[in-house]
Amino acid sequence: MRIVCLAGGIGGARFLRGLRAAAPDAHVTVIGNTGDDITLFGLRVCPDLDTVMYTLGGGIDEEQGWGRAKETYVVKEELAAYGMQPQWFGLGDRDFATHIIRTQMLNAGYPLSQVTEALCDRWRPGVRLIPMTDDPVETHVVIEDERGRRAIHFQEWWVRLRASVPAERIVLVGADEARPAPGVLEAVAEADAVILPPSNPVVSIGTILQIPGIRDAVAAKTVVGVSPIIGGAPVRGMADACLAAIGVETSAQAVLAHYGADLIDGWLVAEEDADVRLPGVRVVARPLIMHDVSAAAEIAGAALSLARELM
Amino acid sequence: MRIVCLAGGIGGARFLRGLRAAAPDAHVTVIGNTGDDITLFGLRVCPDLDTVMYTLGGGIDEEQGWGRAKETYVVKEELAAYGMQPQWFGLGDRDFATHIIRTQMLNAGYPLSQVTEALCDRWRPGVRLIPMTDDPVETHVVIEDERGRRAIHFQEWWVRLRASVPAERIVLVGADEARPAPGVLEAVAEADAVILPPSNPVVSIGTILQIPGIRDAVAAKTVVGVSPIIGGAPVRGMADACLAAIGVETSAQAVLAHYGADLIDGWLVAEEDADVRLPGVRVVARPLIMHDVSAAAEIAGAALSLARELM
Repeated sequence: MRIVCLAGGIGGARFLRGLRAAAPDAHVTVIGNTGDDITLFGLRVCPDLDTVMYTLGGGIDEEQGWGRAKETYVVKEELAAYGMQPQWFGLGDRDFATHIIRTQMLNAGYPLSQVTEALCDRWRPGVRLIPMTDDPVETHVVIEDERGRRAIHFQEWWVRLRASVPAERIVLVGADEARPAPGVLEAVAEADAVILPPSNPVVSIGTILQIPGIRDAVAAKTVVGVSPIIGGAPVRGMADACLAAIGVETSAQAVLAHYGADLIDGWLVAEEDADVRLPGVRVVARPLIMHDVSAAAEIAGAALSLARELM
Repeated sequence: MRIVCLAGGIGGARFLRGLRAAAPDAHVTVIGNTGDDITLFGLRVCPDLDTVMYTLGGGIDEEQGWGRAKETYVVKEELAAYGMQPQWFGLGDRDFATHIIRTQMLNAGYPLSQVTEALCDRWRPGVRLIPMTDDPVETHVVIEDERGRRAIHFQEWWVRLRASVPAERIVLVGADEARPAPGVLEAVAEADAVILPPSNPVVSIGTILQIPGIRDAVAAKTVVGVSPIIGGAPVRGMADACLAAIGVETSAQAVLAHYGADLIDGWLVAEEDADVRLPGVRVVARPLIMHDVSAAAEIAGAALSLARELM
């Protein structure tokens, strides 16, 4: 079975680990979000790609869900001692090595998709990981605070401000000119099903779907989504703050309606959301909390079963 | 008193620390060697500038004489886990921060001299540290081994091969087109004396003197040199391997003759080399081993006294 997943960071990565356990023989291609990518200290950081790579490769900090296990922060402390900004983004020493290699390869002219493949040579994530695009895109958030209305990088809003200032708008700068990375549309075309893990529907999956050509290609396939909202609250993270910015209620029903029946064929919700309905979509209720790998595998297995029914 | 020193790495830096102790009120400008600079993993590394900066700024690893005190090597280990080459150059995590900042500033268009000034804002070395040039130069070493005759970067010869393969030639690539960095010739012109610390006469001081305009400017001043050779052996390092490459004997006499009486006015030698003579040069013998800061201060004080006599 050939499966394509669109994935953001922590939630997507944990779901993927479950999927790999539930369907060890499946050929899985992951299309990773790059809208959160940021250049810090001259180094290119791809938080979502790295979270997927580290999680599936066994290098993740299990507790926090991002960054490397057994991480140290000497470089970051030294940069701070030099007075370098920003200091609000947590880059560990092990993680720095990844960004140093990525930046060296990007500067040498390799596209991000090839860089990601080279990094995965070490991590062997057991899936094919492709960035949604090799082109420069960046998620910006329009906020209004004491300094007035302005657009800031998603990471500044998410990490520095902890999404405490309401987002008026969330914009993927560069989306119009971006093209799917090599292999993205091919993988979708060859897929038996596309699964949307419980990643952020706005700044992760929503971002991937904004790259011209991806949404149409995905919508043409059997698509099963796993609701990132359980009983009116995000499973994790601050998806509610992102949904508010696009005028979508924080509910499994509203997120499904936002994705639309043209995109989604099957929708996996938590048991408390079993009453969710949308014409043209088969809704199935299951426990959706990913306590551990086996819980994630149960959820992934349910998504796969639903996809098989709908194929 | 205004003093200019030409300096390489460890020997120069330790001498400078002594000079600062011997003449705390002197205005010292250090012209640093950049021929050893190397780009590793896309980051620009300036070993000699950093050794001076860390030593005078109190951040040096005292035992090894280069790199940062209390250093860790997590980034280097991670780069190796990715299979990145080279692995023979010892870059520590604290040190990486310096190279990350330098590279970011260089890529933003700042010349190395301004980058060095910015880094020194943190270290406050108590001297003005200027790279010999902002232009790209690189010391290459011509060797012949089982792979034939070829030129390799100085660091590969020095660090990886430990100078075990004879150098046939040592070439400063880019020297002809290089210009002294802003402030270099001005500092020399305004100096009461120029001191050559016991740095490597070939790949440190010799390199600096190869930048067009610097040797002539220095030769016009009162110049006192401290012999890097004591009783036929380098005080430290592998200066003999470099001297052999340029056909100069490893002796205080031969190094003085190589510098020449047109350049040198006073020559400080160790007591066992008291018989060194060159017409036009005043030779003074003193203990020259820099056991510690106070020994270095004694030597620097002797160099200063000799300079004052000759001014």
